[in-house]
Amino acid sequence: MEFLQQSFSVKFEYKVFFTTGLFELTNTGFNDFLEADSTSTSVKKILFVADQDVLKANPALAGQIKAYFTTYKAAQLIPEIISMPGGEIIKNDESYFSKLLDIINHYNIDRHSYVAAIGGGSLLDMAGYAAAVAHRGVKHIRIPTTVLSQNDSGVGVKNSINYFGKKNFLGTFVPPVAVFNDDRFLLTLSDRDYRSGIAEAIKVSLIKDAQFFEWLENNVTALVARDGDTMNYLIKRCAELHLNHIAGLDPFEKGSSRPLDFGHWSAHKLEQLTNFKVLHGEAVAMGIALDTVYSNLSGRLSTDETHRVINLIKKVGFEITHPLLEVTNNDSPILVGLQEFREHLGGELTIMLLTQIGTGVEVHEMDAALIKHAGEILKTEYALSAV
Amino acid sequence: MEFLQQSFSVKFEYKVFFTTGLFELTNTGFNDFLEADSTSTSVKKILFVADQDVLKANPALAGQIKAYFTTYKAAQLIPEIISMPGGEIIKNDESYFSKLLDIINHYNIDRHSYVAAIGGGSLLDMAGYAAAVAHRGVKHIRIPTTVLSQNDSGVGVKNSINYFGKKNFLGTFVPPVAVFNDDRFLLTLSDRDYRSGIAEAIKVSLIKDAQFFEWLENNVTALVARDGDTMNYLIKRCAELHLNHIAGLDPFEKGSSRPLDFGHWSAHKLEQLTNFKVLHGEAVAMGIALDTVYSNLSGRLSTDETHRVINLIKKVGFEITHPLLEVTNNDSPILVGLQEFREHLGGELTIMLLTQIGTGVEVHEMDAALIKHAGEILKTEYALSAV
Ligand SMILES: NC(=O)c1ccc[n+]([C@@H]2O[C@H](COP(=O)([O-])OP(=O)(O)OC[C@H]3O[C@@H](n4cnc5c(N)ncnc54)[C@H](O)[C@@H]3O)[C@@H](O)[C@H]2O)c1
Ligand SMILES: NC(=O)c1ccc[n+]([C@@H]2O[C@H](COP(=O)([O-])OP(=O)(O)OC[C@H]3O[C@@H](n4cnc5c(N)ncnc54)[C@H](O)[C@@H]3O)[C@@H](O)[C@H]2O)c1
Ligand SMILES: [Zn+2]
Ligand SMILES: [Zn+2]
Repeated sequence: MEFLQQSFSVKFEYKVFFTTGLFELTNTGFNDFLEADSTSTSVKKILFVADQDVLKANPALAGQIKAYFTTYKAAQLIPEIISMPGGEIIKNDESYFSKLLDIINHYNIDRHSYVAAIGGGSLLDMAGYAAAVAHRGVKHIRIPTTVLSQNDSGVGVKNSINYFGKKNFLGTFVPPVAVFNDDRFLLTLSDRDYRSGIAEAIKVSLIKDAQFFEWLENNVTALVARDGDTMNYLIKRCAELHLNHIAGLDPFEKGSSRPLDFGHWSAHKLEQLTNFKVLHGEAVAMGIALDTVYSNLSGRLSTDETHRVINLIKKVGFEITHPLLEVTNNDSPILVGLQEFREHLGGELTIMLLTQIGTGVEVHEMDAALIKHAGEILKTEYALSAV
Repeated sequence: MEFLQQSFSVKFEYKVFFTTGLFELTNTGFNDFLEADSTSTSVKKILFVADQDVLKANPALAGQIKAYFTTYKAAQLIPEIISMPGGEIIKNDESYFSKLLDIINHYNIDRHSYVAAIGGGSLLDMAGYAAAVAHRGVKHIRIPTTVLSQNDSGVGVKNSINYFGKKNFLGTFVPPVAVFNDDRFLLTLSDRDYRSGIAEAIKVSLIKDAQFFEWLENNVTALVARDGDTMNYLIKRCAELHLNHIAGLDPFEKGSSRPLDFGHWSAHKLEQLTNFKVLHGEAVAMGIALDTVYSNLSGRLSTDETHRVINLIKKVGFEITHPLLEVTNNDSPILVGLQEFREHLGGELTIMLLTQIGTGVEVHEMDAALIKHAGEILKTEYALSAV
């Protein structure tokens, strides 16, 4: 058949900034970015949408942003700072997405203007999706406020909302134009949300960087005590590993390999079954524990390293298993979850396991009996072992 | 401010095929494509959504597709061929978009499976958007059935629906995995729809390719008589010019320059004001006439070449102006349209004009008095001049 061949590459570039007190008047970084980022000679507008819990925890924030844009003029601030709930509700209830589109339209935010989102991964995912599809893409700035979003979700290229009761059913791969990680935001996080983000650091260290895993082992006490410098290092290293991974072979995940989803197949099911009462990071910690013990039982990972992984997870303060992760019969939710994950991937299962700390391996089958066994051990031996 | 730099490129590749009788059993090209295109070892599904007018005009089509996939097995056909209306309604009424998402979900179309859309630019735009956001992107095959979609909209990277009463308010830049242009489909087009697509060929020749413009002048009689070979050449050359343009500097239109929108600023307004009673190509033909005469009046384009452009447009059978394109006062719709176009671009106006046939130039201002003058001439002198 006769054909014309189309072929082109699109370059995507953005910076992930690290700062303290992003909107203090002495901090010109945000304005500097806006000034340098220009695709048109026209006046750029900037619309802020913020997690209402972040606004509540930082009562001065809205005023600070207004003062900032009174002093610095690289973009014209839309004076209304949009407040929306954080957490999974903002991805579950489509009306928030529609409302944000409405506001983007109302204020004539065009393709040379910005939607800046301040919040956890949930708000960033929703706002990023709205920005990606309005006018086929207005510019999106992410200002993550949780450990998870600063070290993982906020620095990546994905955005989404839930639909048909399915997690992330609608979304796009569209990078932000910039990410600003401000460590001040972490101060007001609950201990649970703070801890939850550490799971992604353990995950990425296990599949990418044994040294970083050791660093986590050595610094777990300071992390749990919420020492700022220690957390700053964790976030930066973890963000770096994520960025490098994305810039690697398959940024928009056209293939079926998803190494960064280590520990996630069971975690997604657990989050969903508990109606997100178990937080993402908490579920991931349990998912990592399960796949680590499975790696050991299937003869891939040494028992010594398995103990180190479980130990670190426990020291951070995570639970290592959950009744819903246990296999009691063929219809146990976790086995259903495995099936759904297979379908989600398009029929061929691809699961990351460990051969050693820092090195993953992909497998295409999992054995139900071994999953059951892993769950039992986690509930008994490992649950009882001292930390 | 400290930062990490992210930087990566994503390569996009697809073929635009040209064929006759795509789903005839002797034509293996479609199956060959599916067989070669593989991102997973799992079974690929393919869901067809077709313009109901195309299905009506080709009563054997649905059966032919089913027979094709009974013989060829590179993908598993979803036996229900989805029928949806063509024309702007499918982009205006969000329920078609929602319904298609629903069907994609219902049949578990995953990221390694296909949504194949058969129809004009309207259906392709809507289906392409749904495919682009479901699961953050399932594979999309375009099978354009109008002259316009085969030579222009169907071969590009944009998709969209209308929203808030605004044309293409929601959409993405996501290329199809393949385009199949089957000239058989053109046989059942109305003369108006057939002619309408010729406007884009005139447009692209004027800004990119003087030789192609001459070819159009020399072949206009055969085109109007719907000679198949002549139209095949037009479509192929026009598609090629569009593909080359997209592969050029700015495939996802991050800048504010839109050379392919020559003649479109007033056309968009006219379509909208007439509630799409004036077809896209018809409006574009008038828009080209206006901007060509404006180019002449503003001293950029010779009078001789201006006559040639207007003559060609008339010979195809297009009207060259419309009462709604006339400037009678400061609030004339066309001036409002210019203002809206400026806002749409983000404040800085960028309009393509001609310096000679085959060569465009971008300007950032248009003079209302000259627009008025151009409209008057088109209504009088040019309207009366012989073809
Ligand atoms: N896009 C991606 O690549 C990606 C990757 C991983 C996770 N995610 C998504 O991220 C979401 C989870 O994000 P998350 O863990 O950041 O949680 P979250 O956004 O749901 O926020 C958790 C809670 O903390 C509150 N909060 C946020 N920042 C705060 C602060 N500084 N002080 C006080 N309270 C604050 C929120 O209002 C919310 O109640 C999930 O939907 C997950 O699917 C996306
Ligand atoms: N994505 C892009 O880059 C891009 C570029 C240009 C235009 N467009 C969009 O394309 C749309 C116009 O597309 P179009 O001109 O192809 O018109 P259309 O899709 O609206 O179809 C016109 C009419 O012809 C019917 N039809 C289609 N194929 C037929 C066939 N083979 N036989 C009989 N009837 C048939 C349709 O049902 C419809 O009634 C507009 O919405 C425009 O915005 C998109
Ligand atoms: Zn995660
Ligand atoms: Zn057009």
